Amino acid sequence: MTVRDQALRARAAASVLAAATRARKDAALHAMADALAKAETAVLDANASDVERAEQDGTGGALIDRLGLTPDRIAGMVDGLRQLASLPDPVGDVVRGWTNANGVQVRQIRVPFGVVGIIYEARPNVTADAAGICLKSGNSALLRGSSSAANSNEAIVEALQEGLVEANLPAEAIQLVSGPREVTNELMAARGLVDVLIPRGGASLIDTVVRNSQVPVIETGVGNCHLFIDATADQQMALDILINGKVQRPSVCNAVETLLVHADIADSFLPKALAALTDRGVTVHGDQRVASYGRVVAAEDQDFAREYLSLDIAAAVVDSIDAALDHIHRYSTGHSEAIVTESQNSASRFTAEVDAAAVLVNASSRFVDGGEFGFGAEIGISTQKLHARGPMGLPEMTSTKYVVTGQGQIRES
Amino acid sequence: MTVRDQALRARAAASVLAAATRARKDAALHAMADALAKAETAVLDANASDVERAEQDGTGGALIDRLGLTPDRIAGMVDGLRQLASLPDPVGDVVRGWTNANGVQVRQIRVPFGVVGIIYEARPNVTADAAGICLKSGNSALLRGSSSAANSNEAIVEALQEGLVEANLPAEAIQLVSGPREVTNELMAARGLVDVLIPRGGASLIDTVVRNSQVPVIETGVGNCHLFIDATADQQMALDILINGKVQRPSVCNAVETLLVHADIADSFLPKALAALTDRGVTVHGDQRVASYGRVVAAEDQDFAREYLSLDIAAAVVDSIDAALDHIHRYSTGHSEAIVTESQNSASRFTAEVDAAAVLVNASSRFVDGGEFGFGAEIGISTQKLHARGPMGLPEMTSTKYVVTGQGQIRES
Repeated sequence: MTVRDQALRARAAASVLAAATRARKDAALHAMADALAKAETAVLDANASDVERAEQDGTGGALIDRLGLTPDRIAGMVDGLRQLASLPDPVGDVVRGWTNANGVQVRQIRVPFGVVGIIYEARPNVTADAAGICLKSGNSALLRGSSSAANSNEAIVEALQEGLVEANLPAEAIQLVSGPREVTNELMAARGLVDVLIPRGGASLIDTVVRNSQVPVIETGVGNCHLFIDATADQQMALDILINGKVQRPSVCNAVETLLVHADIADSFLPKALAALTDRGVTVHGDQRVASYGRVVAAEDQDFAREYLSLDIAAAVVDSIDAALDHIHRYSTGHSEAIVTESQNSASRFTAEVDAAAVLVNASSRFVDGGEFGFGAEIGISTQKLHARGPMGLPEMTSTKYVVTGQGQIRES
Repeated sequence: MTVRDQALRARAAASVLAAATRARKDAALHAMADALAKAETAVLDANASDVERAEQDGTGGALIDRLGLTPDRIAGMVDGLRQLASLPDPVGDVVRGWTNANGVQVRQIRVPFGVVGIIYEARPNVTADAAGICLKSGNSALLRGSSSAANSNEAIVEALQEGLVEANLPAEAIQLVSGPREVTNELMAARGLVDVLIPRGGASLIDTVVRNSQVPVIETGVGNCHLFIDATADQQMALDILINGKVQRPSVCNAVETLLVHADIADSFLPKALAALTDRGVTVHGDQRVASYGRVVAAEDQDFAREYLSLDIAAAVVDSIDAALDHIHRYSTGHSEAIVTESQNSASRFTAEVDAAAVLVNASSRFVDGGEFGFGAEIGISTQKLHARGPMGLPEMTSTKYVVTGQGQIRES
C-alpha cells in the first residue's frame, strides 16, 4: 500500500475519532493496553530479532540500548496507555467564546488535527506512546519508525490495532508506515492528507524533516541548554543545579550542555564546580579562563555549539550578564536556558532577553518536561515558535474551529 | 543588501521591539500615522507611476483597482495605524501559570515571534497594515510586495520608517524586500533568521510559498465557501444569507462560492433563489437538477472547486445532509462553511462534521472576519490547522515562552 493510500485510510479513521466521545477513546486505550500486555512474548521475540540484526550490523551500544525492550519497558508502555485514559480530553474544550453586538455567537472549540505523522528513531516505546497520545487527542497516527526496529514496531502496532478493533474504533487510526527511505519523502510530500508531521530524534533527523517537508512540521527537541552562574549566585544552589542538570540524566534534551560562570565568582566557584563535575565522571571542555583552574580539556569554538547528550560539558568564564546573554544568543538552540542568581535585575533581564522555549531562574533545566509540568503525557518539546513552544501535552496536539451561530444575521458593510 | 543581511538587521531590531513597552510601540504607531499622512503627495505620486506602468503593460482592470491609491485609501491606512495603537498589546500576557508540588513556579507568557515575513500581491495598503500589525505585536516585518507596486511600497515604507525613528525605534523593524523573483526564494530559505512567513494573496501565491518555504508558514485565505440550505430552513432567512454571502462583497475570501440546496425544498426555494441571484447580476453555474429551474449555465465538476471571487456561484441540489457533507468534504478549502436550518440535529451534525476554520449556523459567512470577530486588526484568515485557524488578530502574531522560577529546586528522578 502506498503512503497516500495509508493516509487516505487514516483520514477516514480520523473522522470517526473526531466524533468519538472521551469514554470511547479511553475504553480503546485500555483495550490497547490489554492487548499489548497480552502480546508481551510476541513483542519481545520480534524485538530480539531486531536487536540481533542490529548487533550483526555492528550497531553501537547506545543504539542497541534504545532499541532493546524488556518486560519492564513493555509494562511502561502499557502503563503509559492507561495513564492517558485518566487524562482529560482536550477535544471539545471551548477555548473562548463571545456574543457580537448583533447577537451572533462565536465559540472557538478544540478539535483534533486529523492525521498526525510521527517520524522517529530506534526507540520502539515511542510507537505505543505516540499512538496513544494521538488517539487520546482524536488524531489518526501514521508512525514512521526506524527500520532497525521494524519487527518490534510491527508487533506493537498489531497489538494496538487489536485494541482499537476491540473498542469498535477503526484499526487504520494507528498505522505503521514501512518501506525504504523514499517512504519518508512521500510522507513529507503528503500535504492535504497529513495535517502535521512531528519528527522525534536527533538533530539531523529533525533538520531533514524541517527542510524537506511540505506538510507543516512541529520541530522538537535539540537542546544546547546553558546554565549561567551569575556573580550573586548562591554557590551551593548553583552546584546542585549544575550537577542535577548535567549528571542526573545526560542523554536527554533538557540536560545542561554549557556552563557559563561570571568572572567575579570564578575563583571561588569554578574549583568546586570542576571538582564536583570531574568527580562524577564529567569531561569539562573549558575555554582558556576555565582551563586556568585545571581539570579540563581545551574547548574549541564548536564545542560550545554541541548537544553532547553525554557526560561532557562546555564551560566558559564571562565578564558580565551581557556577555552571558551574547554567548547564549549565539549558541542557543532555543530549548531551555537557566540562570542562578540572587539579583532581581539579572533574573529579570535573563528571562526577558533570552529567546528560548523555557527560561529558568534558580531551578534545574531538567524541570522543562511535560511530566514535570503536570501535562501527564508529552509528545516532545517544541523548539519552534509556531503553534506550540516547550513541552507539548494533549492540548498542543489539537487545532481549533470557530462555531458561529446566529438567527439569520447578515453583514451590513 | 541581501535578504540575509536584511533579516539580520530585522532580528537586531526585533530584540529592541521585544523589550519595547506598549506605550512606546503605540507612540511609534501614531508617529508612523503622522508621517504617512504627511507623505500623502509623495505616496500618490509614486502610486501614479506604478499605475501608469501597469497600464502600459496591459494589466487588467481588477489589478489596477487593487493597485491604485486615493487620498481616501491613504486616510484608511493612517486610521488603521492609529486604531492599532488603541488595541491591547498581547505581548507579556500570561497565558497560564501554576505552581508545581515542589514550589517551582511556571508561567507561560506571550512573546513576539521575532521576524515576520509577509509576501503579498498588488495592494499597497497591505504594506502599512501588515507593518503596523507586526510592530504592535513586537515583530520586525520583512515586506515582500509585488513589483507592480514597488514605487508605492517604497514611498509608504519610507514614511513608516520615519515614524519609527521619530519614536526612537530602529528603522530596520520595517523593511521592504525588493528585487527579482529569486529574492522571494531567499526569503523562503531564511530558516533561523525569519521566524514565520505569511503569504497574502491568491491561491497560486499561497501554494508556491507553502510548497517551497523552509521557514514555517501560516497559510491564509483561499475560500471556496459553501452555503447549505437544509430541508427545514427558514426560506427568507436562507435567501438573505445567500444574497449577503454572494453579492455584498464578492471579491473576498469569506464570500459564498457554492450553494447546496436540500432536494425536499428545491421546488419552493430554488426559483426564488435563482431569481434573486440573477436579478443582482450573478451567474449561476448549476448542476443538472438546478438547471431544471432555468436561469443557469451548466456547471462542470471543476466549477464546484472554484473560488470565483466574482458575481458567479456554483449550485447543486443534494438529497440529504449526508450528501451535503460529502460534497463539502470533497470541495471545501476549509475556510468558512454555512448551513441554514431549523433542525437542531442538522445544525449539530454540520458543525461537528465539517472540517473548516469556521462553521456557521443561520448566519452569513461574511461574519468570519477579524473585524467582525472584534479583533480590531487582522493579518489574514488562516486555513491551516497549526498555530492559528480562522481570523488572525494580534495574539495570533505571537509565540509564548515558559518562565520557570524556583529557589534552588533540582529534579529527583
